[in-house]
Order: sequence, then structure tokens, then C-alpha cells
Amino acid sequence: MRLLLLCCALAAAGAEPSVWTWRCESGSCVRRPAAGVTDGMQLGTCKLTCGELSVVWPRPTGPAAFGSETVPFLIDNIQFQLVAPDPVKPMLQTATEIFLDSLRALQPSGLGGRRAGCRPDGACEPAVAEQAVKVTVAVESAGTALTLETSEYHQLLVNHTAGGQVSVLLYATTFFGARHGLETVSQLIEYDEENACLQASGARSRTKCPILDSPALLIILGSATLSDAPVYPIRALTIDTSRSFIPLSALRRTIDAMAMNKLNTLHWHVTDTHSFPIEVSSEPRLVQYGAYSPRKVYSAREVAQLVRYGRQRGVRLLPELDAPAHVGYGWQWGEDAGLGRLAVCVGEEPWQSYCVEPPCGQMNIVNENMYTVLGKIYKDFNALFQPDIFHMGGDEINFNCWKSSPEIAEHVKDRGGDPSDDSEYMRLWAQYQVRAAALWRNVTGRSTPLVLWTSDLTKQEAVRPSALKPSQYIIQVWTTGTDQQIGNLLRQGFPLLLSNYDAWYLDCGFSAWVGVGNNWCSPYKSWQTVYDNSPRAIARSFEPAGADYASLVRGGSAALWSEQSDAQTLDSRLWPRGAALAERLWAEPDTDSAAALTRLVHHRERMVQRGIGAEPLQPEYCHLNDGVCTT
Amino acid sequence: MRLLLLCCALAAAGAEPSVWTWRCESGSCVRRPAAGVTDGMQLGTCKLTCGELSVVWPRPTGPAAFGSETVPFLIDNIQFQLVAPDPVKPMLQTATEIFLDSLRALQPSGLGGRRAGCRPDGACEPAVAEQAVKVTVAVESAGTALTLETSEYHQLLVNHTAGGQVSVLLYATTFFGARHGLETVSQLIEYDEENACLQASGARSRTKCPILDSPALLIILGSATLSDAPVYPIRALTIDTSRSFIPLSALRRTIDAMAMNKLNTLHWHVTDTHSFPIEVSSEPRLVQYGAYSPRKVYSAREVAQLVRYGRQRGVRLLPELDAPAHVGYGWQWGEDAGLGRLAVCVGEEPWQSYCVEPPCGQMNIVNENMYTVLGKIYKDFNALFQPDIFHMGGDEINFNCWKSSPEIAEHVKDRGGDPSDDSEYMRLWAQYQVRAAALWRNVTGRSTPLVLWTSDLTKQEAVRPSALKPSQYIIQVWTTGTDQQIGNLLRQGFPLLLSNYDAWYLDCGFSAWVGVGNNWCSPYKSWQTVYDNSPRAIARSFEPAGADYASLVRGGSAALWSEQSDAQTLDSRLWPRGAALAERLWAEPDTDSAAALTRLVHHRERMVQRGIGAEPLQPEYCHLNDGVCTT
Repeated sequence: MRLLLLCCALAAAGAEPSVWTWRCESGSCVRRPAAGVTDGMQLGTCKLTCGELSVVWPRPTGPAAFGSETVPFLIDNIQFQLVAPDPVKPMLQTATEIFLDSLRALQPSGLGGRRAGCRPDGACEPAVAEQAVKVTVAVESAGTALTLETSEYHQLLVNHTAGGQVSVLLYATTFFGARHGLETVSQLIEYDEENACLQASGARSRTKCPILDSPALLIILGSATLSDAPVYPIRALTIDTSRSFIPLSALRRTIDAMAMNKLNTLHWHVTDTHSFPIEVSSEPRLVQYGAYSPRKVYSAREVAQLVRYGRQRGVRLLPELDAPAHVGYGWQWGEDAGLGRLAVCVGEEPWQSYCVEPPCGQMNIVNENMYTVLGKIYKDFNALFQPDIFHMGGDEINFNCWKSSPEIAEHVKDRGGDPSDDSEYMRLWAQYQVRAAALWRNVTGRSTPLVLWTSDLTKQEAVRPSALKPSQYIIQVWTTGTDQQIGNLLRQGFPLLLSNYDAWYLDCGFSAWVGVGNNWCSPYKSWQTVYDNSPRAIARSFEPAGADYASLVRGGSAALWSEQSDAQTLDSRLWPRGAALAERLWAEPDTDSAAALTRLVHHRERMVQRGIGAEPLQPEYCHLNDGVCTT
Repeated sequence: MRLLLLCCALAAAGAEPSVWTWRCESGSCVRRPAAGVTDGMQLGTCKLTCGELSVVWPRPTGPAAFGSETVPFLIDNIQFQLVAPDPVKPMLQTATEIFLDSLRALQPSGLGGRRAGCRPDGACEPAVAEQAVKVTVAVESAGTALTLETSEYHQLLVNHTAGGQVSVLLYATTFFGARHGLETVSQLIEYDEENACLQASGARSRTKCPILDSPALLIILGSATLSDAPVYPIRALTIDTSRSFIPLSALRRTIDAMAMNKLNTLHWHVTDTHSFPIEVSSEPRLVQYGAYSPRKVYSAREVAQLVRYGRQRGVRLLPELDAPAHVGYGWQWGEDAGLGRLAVCVGEEPWQSYCVEPPCGQMNIVNENMYTVLGKIYKDFNALFQPDIFHMGGDEINFNCWKSSPEIAEHVKDRGGDPSDDSEYMRLWAQYQVRAAALWRNVTGRSTPLVLWTSDLTKQEAVRPSALKPSQYIIQVWTTGTDQQIGNLLRQGFPLLLSNYDAWYLDCGFSAWVGVGNNWCSPYKSWQTVYDNSPRAIARSFEPAGADYASLVRGGSAALWSEQSDAQTLDSRLWPRGAALAERLWAEPDTDSAAALTRLVHHRERMVQRGIGAEPLQPEYCHLNDGVCTT
């Protein structure tokens, strides 16, 4: 619709081409009025050939060298040769289709179904009609699952051969490295409308080039070599589908965008006190009581499809069942079913006394029947997600909530404890965690690593060797990057994921949702703040001489809590800040956000071309004029 | 796509209906598990019938009374009778079509083309198949243009007659009042899926109601009376299409959303230094040099269409040609064309010395040829927009820019002035403004009111009676709501528009776009801040005893500058904060944002149903549970 209108605009305005072209000056693309038809180049060409790494995001960590020649080609002339063990081959095949789709997305929809490089009458540009791009992908390993041990390494070699053919050689240890490599190749390709027009129409004057009638050409960088692998094995976004339901189409789009940025983990905070939107086939009452509406449920089949969708794009789904707090809706039918209360203080008021935000609710951890239900959920989650890591939540337990339950107080008394003593509830909580972990192990029959948020349980004084072991748990830090708990955890050898809210909470800065003013973790975390948040630097800041804390960092996740974000805002909250995160986690560059600005602005434009509603960082003027919009 | 998937989700999950229904308790809709099929009501029904004014946004200013009965009906059974002078009739006719479209949007797209109230096999619900809703619209005046004198008053009477027919009587002085009235009627109608299902299928159990096979019913409030008119005649949004181009489809969607909120003015900051995206037929070089790309141009035909699109929806387009600063791209061809420099210091560096943001640029106000070009633009703008008010910008003039031009310095010297003396440039600026205003008058042949931003020119000491007269100028305040200049302007009798950035700048709070951290006017202006910004209170805070400053306030505008916002973020930046603005400007309520929360949350859901990507203010839980999410 939109592009149709733009096309009309163009027609009505007489399709006057712009007077502007670009030149590469000291590694920057500089816009100048063209002196003639052949003067300068268009922006896409300049971006591909000017400056260091200006088109690849995130930046490669291995040696990389790029040429300065571009070669026009037709999408239809791309040929693939796939060399891989059998189980990987169909996944590679699909990856090449995704690759082609990403190239088609670069062309304005105004071209309709027309083939790139061809005129409306079907005639193709002779100069490029025979120009083949041959992509060879070789994968060594037969593995099709992403785990903490999976290599994402890949090597790439692009050559413009004497015969005129462009040869792309991509080698990777695993499928996951190969798909990252294809992503890199797609970033070495641009759509360069006006240049294509001038070249192909033989126009002698810029004012005469009939843009919409010209072949739409893609160009590829003619020569490049790079080898690449990420610094951290877990590069994640945290999504919350309990405070707001997020439709599957939006989740798929998020995975698409993650794949564009080589992020590999969608940490899915599926449930919370507010709603329980995921079908647990063995216990339908969870969604019947817990979903916001019958339309706002992820069916088991859909979840399984989404898991496959992610894997195909190099993204694991890491499910979280947050407990024993952040539990409420979906669990209220226990008494009617003769199972007793499964959750306590659900929706209790004043909420400030029992939890951090309305509605309150925590598991009734002294009710044996609750563990039966929990086991059903674990069993279904394991079947649906086949997760290599499982997230148990564990944050923001409020003892007042448990104290308010006569049943739990009675339980404490029965054990000879004092129901007003916090340490009793601390002990209950630790016991719950041990039991839940055992339940998960029993249900899955595997020892997957478990993740917990930082909490009172993970604090040094509370981490009893019997409850949490560094060999079993990864701790996700949501407190600030200067929280002393980080040092304590590292000293004990716990692997960490960083999600420190002072940099990596993407929901901060908007209207308060209870009260007035702005929300609790304001201000909005700028993309610069996101980019400049280095897990390595954080770990090192706690490091005593001789220790190696940085090696305990498994990666990080930027969290978009959904109290004030749903399908309407998902893209613009996540992107391009998620891209800033991605480069930090892929490369841990020594340089800061200022050095990444021009590249990120270009990458954002590419994400929008590919259908991601990323927010703009600067006026479009700044994308057209490298380096001008700085202090 | 999304709803198709939701429908599959529903099918796969076995279409378990929710256990929840609502009851009206002390004016709030309270969610409770249903005790049986007939227990409670669905949320839409409750919202229509529970509490005061819970569904009408912005709140009516005249007496209003609502009944507590709802009546189901089929869209096809709505009949219109239009009583209006000839020129108004076709506009009213179109308004009824827009009205019907807004009702169709309430139904989930999963229903496909099925008629509301009818089953997939085409059989319609007998109980409602004959149920007519008869809407009579009577308009008195033949006027079809919106001016500062246009009455937007309307009166509404809804009755459920003994014969079973719902009668809607709508009276308005003008077309514009009538369309507002139709908007109100559309807000008295809800889509209530599950209730309709239960009623129509005769299901005996909530777990058996086949939602997707049931008729989709609309319900209308059976009885209502209200009379309504706005407090301020100018209720605006300010949109900027120079820093980022905004496609026409997004501008139309913005007008749709404004109409839903009875906002009546789209203040269009069309051009700026960054780009000149609007076709001026008599001078094509303006877009050729000024547009970001040939695809990013508003053609003359499109602008004329947009003006009609707005008028039909009660929205005037108020064009701004910001000058003599904020001018640059589009004006650089003067020397090549033998006209001399039309703009000076364009793109000059370091930009901090010549302007407030890159790129710099100001008109060359001593070049006679510049006025020739300016006259062409004015002539085209007048022809395209037929504006009843015209905005001349006038903000952020930087004397260093003019001083840096040898030509302007020479001009000052020729007049016997000192080129280093700021007061010389102040005088030049004032003379420019007088000349530009005369040029506009000459070109249009009319004395439209002119708008200027607050600036050094509008400050008390600078406002020479010869330059700016309160009878000719409306001043738009962009400084803070406590700026003493407001009092000075009111004392001189200037009519004001409020856009004080401390409350009504919608672009604040995001990443800095030059430098690091957050942008200049951070924090993000919360919807509460937007709502609680009262122009009347601001005017009165400067009012000496016995004066009536509030009557000089013509209204206000919330501004979304586009350095960091384009089509990807337009909806979520504007809405629902624009709705908060709309209620403030329509009603100037004595109550504050806290009192509006529940209603706004519901209105936001309605805007999303109608296709506007408004951001969520609270978890969906809060929409389902009135009044729970407060402090």
C-alpha cells in the first residue's frame, strides 16, 4: 500500500531523479551534486566499498578484508552448491531460501513481481543477464541442535573470477555458523536503484532516467575474505508474553530480526502473575483461567512450530517458567478441583504489601498438589521446546505473601519454626528450588543447565552449596552493573548472563504505569548505553589479581518487559537497540558506540527494508551524509 | 496474517472459552469467574453500561446521560437519514461510510467477509436480524470549510423505542459537529464476541460455545443523551516531514486517529534545513535538490488529496513553511541559476557555531531573488492547502549564520550599520517577517491569521508594533509552560497556541542523536504529563487580577519532531498520548490524568482495533480489571 503510493508520488512528480551522488572521501560516503551522468556513485555502492566494515553488522571478530569493486547481478542467477551431512542439508536448503527472501526484500515493492534486473516487458539487462553468482556452502558437522558447545564459526571468501562469475565460498563447522555466514553475504549485497537506472537505460542525463521503468539491480561486493565467530555463546533477547500477549507473527518477526543480527537466544518469559498464555495439554485449566482471552493462547502446535522456526534461523528458544513468585492467573482453580490452593495472595490488595507490581501472587510451595501441576508443566515445556537450557525465574519473592497464607504459616509452625521469622521462608524457598530442579531433571531425564535471576537466594550469604551449584546454574543478573553480588557470584564460580537493568532493560523511560511521571527504571536506555555496556568490563571490574572472571560470562540478554509494550511497539522497542546489543555480545569491541554510529544507522535502514519496524536514530539526512551528525 | 494465526491458535487450543465474566461494582468493571452461562457480562457490555462516560473519548463538555441497556444489531441494518444543505450532503454521506468502516474494524478479521450477526452459512441471528438502528443526522449550515469560527457543537439522542428499533438522532450546526457526533455514536458501540456466542448459539455451557462459528454481534447502548462542543478551536498535532519523510499512508492513518479523538488540526511542518519534500510545481529544483530521494516527495496532487481527506474527517491541514531559519536543502541551486545564493551557511561546520542542529542553513534575506522563489512557494501552498491559517515558523534564527555571509554583512554596511552588531540582524529579521507576511497576503489575496513560534522576535522587547500585530499573528509557544514570555505575549493581547516542550513534545526521552545519553528534551513526556498540561492553567498563572488571559488561548499542539521518528514509530509516539492531549483540548477537565486512566486504557484498545498502532500504557491485565493498577 505504502509503496504503491510512493510510486504514484514519483509518477506525479515527474520522476525527477535526485541531483545527488556520493564519493568516498577518507573512508566516509560524502554527498555531492553530480557533475554529470557518470559522476560519483549511489549510496548503496558507496557503503559497500568505502570505509572499514561499513556494511557488516555485527562486526566480524576474525581477520577481514574487503575489495572496492561491485558487481551487478540478477537474483535468478544465484546458484547454490550445498555440501553437508544429510541431516543438515534440508536446513541449509531452507537457509538459502531465507537468504533469497532477504535479497528480494531490498527491492522496493513498487516493482511488483518484476524480476530484479529486468524491465517491465521482461527483457533483462544484457550486461548482467549472464552474470552468475555461485554460492558454495560447506558444513562439517551433522548436528542440528544449538547448544552451549555449538561452534558458530564461519569463513567466507568472495571472488570475482576472470570469467565474470562471482564465487562465494562459505565454510562452517556447523549449520549455525553457515547460516550466520549467509547473513554476512546478504549484507555484502545492496539494491542501488538510481545507478542501475542510469547504467541500464543508457540515459544521458540525470533528469531523464525513468526510474520505475528501469531494471532493478542488485550489486554484490566483488571481493571479500573474513573469518568470524562470536565472543559469547548466549546472545539473547528477553521477551515477556504475560503482561501483554504478543501474537506469533510478531514473535516470528522478532526471530527474523535476531537472525539479521546473529543473536541466537530468544529467552521467553512465557508466564507471570498477570496471565498464563501457553497451552499445557495435560492441564487445560491453566490457560482457561490464565489466558487474557481464548484468542490469546499459544497452542502446543504453534510453540513447536516456533521452536523449529527459531532453530532454522540460528535462534534457540529458552523458555522461562518464573517461580515461585510471579505466579497467579492460571492457578486459581485448585480449591474447586479439590487440590487446595495452588497459589496464594493472588490479586491481594494493597499490592504494595505483597509484591512489586499488581497483581500479586506466589506459588503455594507447601501444597503437594502444586508440584503435581508443576511437573505437568515441566513435562510439556520439555516436549515442546526441547530446551538445552531452562530458565526457572526465581526473582522477587515476597515473604509477606507467604506469611499471609494461614496454610503456609501453619506449615512453618508444624516444623517447629516461627511464622514471623523471615529465615523460615528463606529456607522454604531454597527447598522449593532444590525440589523444582530435581523435578525438572526427573521429567526431562537430562541435566540441562538451569538459569535463575539474581535474587536474595543467589546472594552470597544465601547461596547454600546444597541449593545452588555453579555446575548446575547460570545466574542472570538484572540488578545494576555495579552490584556487588556480581563479584560474589563470580568468586563462587557461577557462570553469568548480564541483563543489568541500567543498560539492558528496553522497557525503561516511558510513562509510569502506576502513578504519575515516568516508569521505575527511567530513563530510556539509549542505544549508546546498550552498546557501551560491556559484560567483560563488568566482570573485570570485580576481578582480583590473577583471577579470570571474564571467562565466566556466558553472554547477556536485553529484556523487553511487556507492561507497556505489545505487538504495536515490539519492533521499535527492540530495534535497533537489539542490534547494538548484538554487536557487543558478538564482538566485545574495544571501541565504543561513537565508532559504531554510521554503521548502525545504515544497518537500521537495512532492517527496515527487510520489514522490521526499527526506530530511527537520526534524521535521514545523517544516513545520507556520513559523519556529519556528531558533536 | 496475525488474526489468521490467532484463529488457528484458537482452533488448536480447542477454543476453550475463558471462565471470566464481568460485573459492574461501584462504577467499575470487575472480573470474576462465571458461575454459569448467564452469569455476568463480557467486558465490552460492561464498559458501555458501567460508570460515567467510560467509553466516550474525549469526554463531552455538555450535559450527558447514559442508560444501562445494550441492544444487539447487525451492521447491515443500520439506516441513515441525512438532512443537510446540498454542499454538505455528500460529505455527510462519506462520513457515514467512514462510520460503518469504524464499526467493521471492531470485529476480528478472523471472521473474514462474514456479516456481523450471521453464521458462516449465511443464516442470521433471528433475534437481531430485524433489529434496525436508524441514524438521523441533521446539519444546519451549508459551510464545508473548517475555520476558526466553525461551530463543532453537536447534540445526540439515542433511544430504544417500544417497537424494538434503536433511534439515533444527531443534530449539529455544521458538518464538522456532525462528524464528531458520528464519532461519539461509534464509541457507544462495542463488539462483544463471547456474549454474542453464548446468546446466539444457545450454548448451555461456557466450555461448549463454538466462538468462531457464532454470529459476531455488535451491541449499541440503548439510551443516551448528550450535547457537546470543544473548549478550544485549535486542537492540533505537529508533524515534521523534513527530518524524516513520512509516507502518505502514515499521514492518512494519523488523520484517521485524530478524527477518532476529535482533534481538528494537522500542523504540517513540511520543510526544514534537512530536506524539502513537497512539490512546488513552479519550481521543481526545490525537490530535486531538497528531497531525500525521488521516492520521498509529496506531489501536488497528493497534497490536494490529503487536504480533502483531512477535511472529510474534520481535520484542517495547517501548513508551515519555517523561515528564515530552518532553510537549506532544496535552496542550493541559486548561484548556478544566476540568482545568487538563496540560502546561506547551508551545511556549515562546526554546526554548533551556526545553528541548533546539523545541517545549518538560513534564508539569504537580502537576496531579492529569494523572495521571488518564496512567492512561488506561497502561491503553490495556498493553491494546494487553501489554508484558513498559515504558519511561518520563525524559530531559532542564528545571527552567526547571517554574519558568516559576506553578502549579508555587506548589506548591513551599505545601510550604514555595523556587521558585528546583533541588533542589525534583529532589524533585518523583523523586516523579513513584515515582507513575508505581505507577500503571503498578496499571493493569496486574503488576510489569513499567521502563526509564528516563540522566538527572540516575539519577545516583548523585540515585538515592534510595526512587525507583529495581535490581530494578525497567533504565537505558538514551544518554550516551557513557565516561560515569562507567555505572560508578556498575553499582556499584549496575542492569541496563543500551547506546545510547551516540557509537556507537549512527543519526541523527547529517546537516545541522543548527536553525542551520547538521552536527547535534549528528556525525559519522555508521559501521557499523564501530556494530560495534566492545562493551557487555561498556564494562561491564568500569568494573569493579573481582573484580566482574562485564558480567553486568548486558541488551543494547542503536541509536536512530534522527526529527527528520531518516521513511519516505523509514528503511531506509537503519537498515540495514546495524542488522545490525552485531545481530551485536554476538547474539555479542559478540572480532573487530572488519574481520573482518566481507566477510560484512556479502554480508548487505546479501541484505537488498536481500528488499526492505529498506539502504545500500551499498562499490562492488558489492567484493562480487564478496572482500577486495580493504581497506587
